[in-house]
Amino acid sequence: MPFDPQDPEFEARVRASFARQRMMQTIGAVLERVAPGEVDIRVPFRDEISQHHGFVHAGAITTAVDTACGYAALSLMPPGTGVLSIEFKVSLLSPGKGDAILARGRVVKPGRNVSFCQGEVFAVDGGAEKLVATMSATMMTVRGRPDVVD
Amino acid sequence: MPFDPQDPEFEARVRASFARQRMMQTIGAVLERVAPGEVDIRVPFRDEISQHHGFVHAGAITTAVDTACGYAALSLMPPGTGVLSIEFKVSLLSPGKGDAILARGRVVKPGRNVSFCQGEVFAVDGGAEKLVATMSATMMTVRGRPDVVD
Amino acid sequence: MPFDPQDPEFEARVRASFARQRMMQTIGAVLERVAPGEVDIRVPFRDEISQHHGFVHAGAITTAVDTACGYAALSLMPPGTGVLSIEFKVSLLSPGKGDAILARGRVVKPGRNVSFCQGEVFAVDGGAEKLVATMSATMMTVRGRPDVVD
Amino acid sequence: MPFDPQDPEFEARVRASFARQRMMQTIGAVLERVAPGEVDIRVPFRDEISQHHGFVHAGAITTAVDTACGYAALSLMPPGTGVLSIEFKVSLLSPGKGDAILARGRVVKPGRNVSFCQGEVFAVDGGAEKLVATMSATMMTVRGRPDVVD
Repeated sequence: MPFDPQDPEFEARVRASFARQRMMQTIGAVLERVAPGEVDIRVPFRDEISQHHGFVHAGAITTAVDTACGYAALSLMPPGTGVLSIEFKVSLLSPGKGDAILARGRVVKPGRNVSFCQGEVFAVDGGAEKLVATMSATMMTVRGRPDVVD
Repeated sequence: MPFDPQDPEFEARVRASFARQRMMQTIGAVLERVAPGEVDIRVPFRDEISQHHGFVHAGAITTAVDTACGYAALSLMPPGTGVLSIEFKVSLLSPGKGDAILARGRVVKPGRNVSFCQGEVFAVDGGAEKLVATMSATMMTVRGRPDVVD
Repeated sequence: MPFDPQDPEFEARVRASFARQRMMQTIGAVLERVAPGEVDIRVPFRDEISQHHGFVHAGAITTAVDTACGYAALSLMPPGTGVLSIEFKVSLLSPGKGDAILARGRVVKPGRNVSFCQGEVFAVDGGAEKLVATMSATMMTVRGRPDVVD
Repeated sequence: MPFDPQDPEFEARVRASFARQRMMQTIGAVLERVAPGEVDIRVPFRDEISQHHGFVHAGAITTAVDTACGYAALSLMPPGTGVLSIEFKVSLLSPGKGDAILARGRVVKPGRNVSFCQGEVFAVDGGAEKLVATMSATMMTVRGRPDVVD
């Protein structure tokens, strides 16, 4: 089902917030698609994000898909609000290897205070995509103070 | 209850593996304590790991505590084996701010194939420590092939 | 993608195991569809499974969808093996109310020792179905001893 | 750290709500200790809550510890409010067998809208207690409408 954004400037808001996340630059993440309730983030493979066997670190996978889920939720929130992750679970189906990982965050149920999201992470290798991780996440709408989970 | 390591060289094995993780260098993580079933990792605050409000990114927090839990599990595994994260859940109680974050990984129940771990992440600010995140994780013992979750 | 079961008697095996679960009778659960990697369980609404506001208790929802995911995994395991839940996460999107709940368990990635599953729970009210909960679960193949998660 | 309840009648409120949960009677659960941020629930072993190997069903374990965590959170909420589970994760360390299971729910961080809890479940066999499951849960304060997670 398609979602109806409350903020017509949702894409600009998401892109501006993404640009302020230094961690995204640190792992080399690129914000691709921004649609109502849907955000895709790509992270090209680089040695800087690898773990001890040379695959993409679970932490880098999580960083990308948490951010995709958070911005998917933010895209449906009212103007003037922010987003914080309350919690997430990540299942690591297969090691991340190839040219890049692609993290897709989707809102399952938006809410006034609490939004439920799911994410999928694919390893992209040449033209092939393989599902390597899934996320189930809860996001909070932040009004006023950005520093309080309450 | 204290755990009895199967590999007398467990600390050297954990430290050597940590040193091969480029992602740890990328976020500036330092491996501190390594004991049987217990590993602590410190990440000094740096702009490079911040999110859009200037706090430590949930992805950096997760990267540190996943690694601490994984190595806590590895410290109890037999020589010649490796470790992969099967899944983890992270609860983000409060934003991470201060001088550094300290991630503590602990084994709750070791197993032949599957080990259960819990992690706690503290924000360190001056002399004060504040709990900012918790992790519940499942780790797998890897024999032979490092690239298969099976 | 369709899965290829290793045990041609998978459906009989799942149905026989379900019949031994007294907890299923206690909550009034009915095993409906059994296909390779897919199991559906229906629980008609009854006061006996309600919580303090009169909705279906989150514990009953979890009981149904954990069992659906576990048997979805078992349907792809070799003859002579059993299944245990290692862990699961449940997100409770909306209260469960209506005529019945329908829990659908699906295998996302089967494995020799560890299988990843996802579940969805719908509240059925007249002809309408509403998604009320999601599950992300990890299941273990049990060989020999049914009483050890290892 | 001890918590300071906002409602001096917290124990009566928790016990009255527990008494309205038919699911608690169905699994034979007994509400034991109620303290600020801490609730213990005991479930004597009975065939009616068993799974296919004769152990306590993961669903019954979850029902007990979810309820313990929910009421631990409710004990710290203001008068006139209610509680709903947003999500929980359960790790099943060992099969539940013995005379009874004992579920202990604890608040890790209370909040105005969102409270974080952890639970532990022990199998009690004679005088011995063995940790068989852990829970990490998020609870929501409900004001006014008990039927909306929002």
